[in-house]
Amino acid sequence: MVEKLIDIIERSLKKCPWLEKQNIESLLDALTSEVEEVKEAIKRKDLTNLEEEIGDLIYDAFLVGAVAERDHGVDLKRAIQRVVEKVSHRKPWLFWDRKISLEEAERIWKERKKEI
Amino acid sequence: MVEKLIDIIERSLKKCPWLEKQNIESLLDALTSEVEEVKEAIKRKDLTNLEEEIGDLIYDAFLVGAVAERDHGVDLKRAIQRVVEKVSHRKPWLFWDRKISLEEAERIWKERKKEI
Repeated sequence: MVEKLIDIIERSLKKCPWLEKQNIESLLDALTSEVEEVKEAIKRKDLTNLEEEIGDLIYDAFLVGAVAERDHGVDLKRAIQRVVEKVSHRKPWLFWDRKISLEEAERIWKERKKEI
Repeated sequence: MVEKLIDIIERSLKKCPWLEKQNIESLLDALTSEVEEVKEAIKRKDLTNLEEEIGDLIYDAFLVGAVAERDHGVDLKRAIQRVVEKVSHRKPWLFWDRKISLEEAERIWKERKKEI
């Protein structure tokens, strides 16, 4: 399903006259509004709306990434690769069989954060 | 690359004592901070840092989605499917060969927004 979202984002970069007029600041503002809409849906306990707003939130985050690539030379794939590598390095317990305590996790995370 | 990100998120839900302590509000706050960090990187014209912050932003948006599923019963896959369907319906020009004007796009978008 995420592949379809990526496809929509790529099509938008090529073919959407609305996106052409946007810049990273206007899209970050849209994302900030979306954060508020998610908070509102939680307050109202409106699950159907919450699901819609969560979709919008992730879509808006990808639009920010796409325009960072278009206008600021960011390589979006590499950006995602870097966060995957960073989190995998800082949180090695994600790949362990045993579950660890919060204290142990925080100790490892602090040590590894010095590296990348 | 997005599949690896999704894998990290799924592992975090199962195995991360830090994520266990988070709720959707604390993760929305983290996402809001990330928006500010992206803005700062743009102001400083720091491309390497901007790429890192864009990765963090997308990761944080998925964490919000994952915890919306864990704590609020949202189906994250369906949330993404719904935004793909909504955008595809409201922006049919993404699937057209010809490029259209902003005026035509806005007219179609307003009409279709009444439907879904």
